Amino acid sequence: MPKLNENYQNLKESYLFAEIAHRVADYTEKNPDKKVIRLGIGDVTLPVGSLAIQGLHEGVDAMASSETFMGYGPEQGYAFLREAISGYYAKNGVDVSAADIFISDGAKCDTGNIAELFSADNVILIPDPVYPVYVDSNIMSGKKVTYIDANADNNFLPLPDPSVHADIIYICSPNNPTGAAYNREQLKIWVDYALANEAVILYDAAYECFISDPEIPHSIYAIEGAKKCAIEFCSLSKTAGFTGTRCAYTIVPRDLVFTASNGEEMSLHAMWNRRQSTKFNGTSYIVQKGAAAVFTEEGMRQCHENISYYKENARIIAETLTRKNIRFFGGVNSPYIWLECPNGMESWAFFDYLLNEIQVVGTPGAGFGENGRNFFRLTSFGNRENTIEAMERFEKLI
Amino acid sequence: MPKLNENYQNLKESYLFAEIAHRVADYTEKNPDKKVIRLGIGDVTLPVGSLAIQGLHEGVDAMASSETFMGYGPEQGYAFLREAISGYYAKNGVDVSAADIFISDGAKCDTGNIAELFSADNVILIPDPVYPVYVDSNIMSGKKVTYIDANADNNFLPLPDPSVHADIIYICSPNNPTGAAYNREQLKIWVDYALANEAVILYDAAYECFISDPEIPHSIYAIEGAKKCAIEFCSLSKTAGFTGTRCAYTIVPRDLVFTASNGEEMSLHAMWNRRQSTKFNGTSYIVQKGAAAVFTEEGMRQCHENISYYKENARIIAETLTRKNIRFFGGVNSPYIWLECPNGMESWAFFDYLLNEIQVVGTPGAGFGENGRNFFRLTSFGNRENTIEAMERFEKLI
Repeated sequence: MPKLNENYQNLKESYLFAEIAHRVADYTEKNPDKKVIRLGIGDVTLPVGSLAIQGLHEGVDAMASSETFMGYGPEQGYAFLREAISGYYAKNGVDVSAADIFISDGAKCDTGNIAELFSADNVILIPDPVYPVYVDSNIMSGKKVTYIDANADNNFLPLPDPSVHADIIYICSPNNPTGAAYNREQLKIWVDYALANEAVILYDAAYECFISDPEIPHSIYAIEGAKKCAIEFCSLSKTAGFTGTRCAYTIVPRDLVFTASNGEEMSLHAMWNRRQSTKFNGTSYIVQKGAAAVFTEEGMRQCHENISYYKENARIIAETLTRKNIRFFGGVNSPYIWLECPNGMESWAFFDYLLNEIQVVGTPGAGFGENGRNFFRLTSFGNRENTIEAMERFEKLI
Repeated sequence: MPKLNENYQNLKESYLFAEIAHRVADYTEKNPDKKVIRLGIGDVTLPVGSLAIQGLHEGVDAMASSETFMGYGPEQGYAFLREAISGYYAKNGVDVSAADIFISDGAKCDTGNIAELFSADNVILIPDPVYPVYVDSNIMSGKKVTYIDANADNNFLPLPDPSVHADIIYICSPNNPTGAAYNREQLKIWVDYALANEAVILYDAAYECFISDPEIPHSIYAIEGAKKCAIEFCSLSKTAGFTGTRCAYTIVPRDLVFTASNGEEMSLHAMWNRRQSTKFNGTSYIVQKGAAAVFTEEGMRQCHENISYYKENARIIAETLTRKNIRFFGGVNSPYIWLECPNGMESWAFFDYLLNEIQVVGTPGAGFGENGRNFFRLTSFGNRENTIEAMERFEKLI
């Protein structure tokens, strides 16, 4: 009989979005006349920009004739896209070589699969609350996770304890779910800590396009020394509305070399390259053509038109909460607003309260970890009218 | 310092296609006037059919407006595509439930990632020669591989030794690289063996669309009992020319339930679902729209137009080899022709001989395992004129 990977038995059932869907369905069945407004799920709603659409169509057209047909592409992605991304970093003042960039079909895949490169005997530091993929991918491969508290006391931006050692550190900034974003000085503390501990930072920058504050870096590589200690994940999901189109990229600097137990040097870049060459066959050419259009000047301008729309939604939500004296995090350099449930309410109770009283759906913080128990996530990805209406209802209720 | 996954040190460098490219480049530099014909790499060359192209364009168009925009889709794939695939199986007389089908972006990913579901202490049976992903993905996760000899004596279709136990069995039929395909009776022997051993068969059917012999099943599930012992991988890469477009599917029957060491039952379907939900975010909606068009009657007719073209190439190659009294396998229910190097030549020597004498590039069998040492793979994916010219040159030379 096959011996199964019993680490899967240690996974918690992932009830969060299923439970939300269940409660909403239950409510709407009993109250078919009520208009429910969903500000819960982190998915975009605006269409993809016209330039990216054109790039996607061109990609499809190429497949239609022998002369332009594209078969297997490089597992690492096409040079035209890797170079376009390198150019995008350069515009943000960050030097990233195209050779260090791996194109993929999702940051979720890459942040999950990266755990394969490490053995089980590492001290792995993950913030709580957290995007569940970091935790689950480690549990699946038999690794033990150590949590670092993100809470209101540290503005949901924990810094390392120099007396505690870590080997692998997950950071998501701007953060999902809390919307908090590290500034340059704080990131430098993390990089210095990682260098001192010879640790690796796994840096999820999927929401970097929402950053407007110049003090907040768009990339960990804006910090000196980061190429010696950090892998960065980024995605077009939120930047370009590619959640259903699927394109992401991961940067694994060639400087990330560590000594194995037999004394040989092992390069994380070479390992990731081997991992991707073996278990991945490249991102769709069609999608890469669309993605390349995103990184043109006009393509990026179109993206920022959508991002501004979402940021205005975030501003409307934040303003309402401020007026109501409700403490919250995020909402400025992030599409997420992480608010403290009023009167010490638990997050699921607050979920039910909002659903029943004003038919607004958000995400209970408890779904992201212990420290989310009394918090609640709203997203700015809804449309303007619904966001305004939800906040009007909220203002009347609270 | 992070402890890296040192199993990667046990991987052999994958020189095969790099070495081929290197030798060809070297030759063409020295002989710029010679026309090199490539019958080596397993990539298609004909364009995608017009119906699939239309589906892809429709998918792109959907992304362009708010009303039809598609964000995150189900990690398992859209119901419209899962049902279309279930219908495709039904047409082949095989009952596969849409609920057991997982859509992905590649059979390479799925055949590689599936190793995650098993622990290190399994007897894993892999044929030699073999598609290298099966071996490498197991080595990466610290598993030991046992080889079963595929050779001319068994027509490259090894059958199980009932006295030897296995837990996990890799079968690729029609086979890459040998082109050999198991008939119903032979597959039944494997299924019966797996059931008797409570083993799991990982069945790679990526080349099923090349089968024309009615005695050769298109799916392992054509064999009674297979749903209790087999996972099947399939792909649109060769069926629909999707090597650069990327779409595949994997069937994990809900009947595949095994007992864990603590006595609890674990379902491979539930594990794969959890794996994909955690580390994958669904296949591009655009690509799924194109794939759905492939499974319409007219879409499949267009695919078979291309497949017939390739099969005619295979016939031309096979005919030449037959005339020359060169022993070969495949070429009928497969795009691959696996020939014995004449005069006991080693495969790399034969590679150099063909390159230098007639400028025809194939793939040395040694790249696929020990048993390929004296064999050579030609593919039917070239264009007609080149295939004919290559065989004319071959006929003169040998």
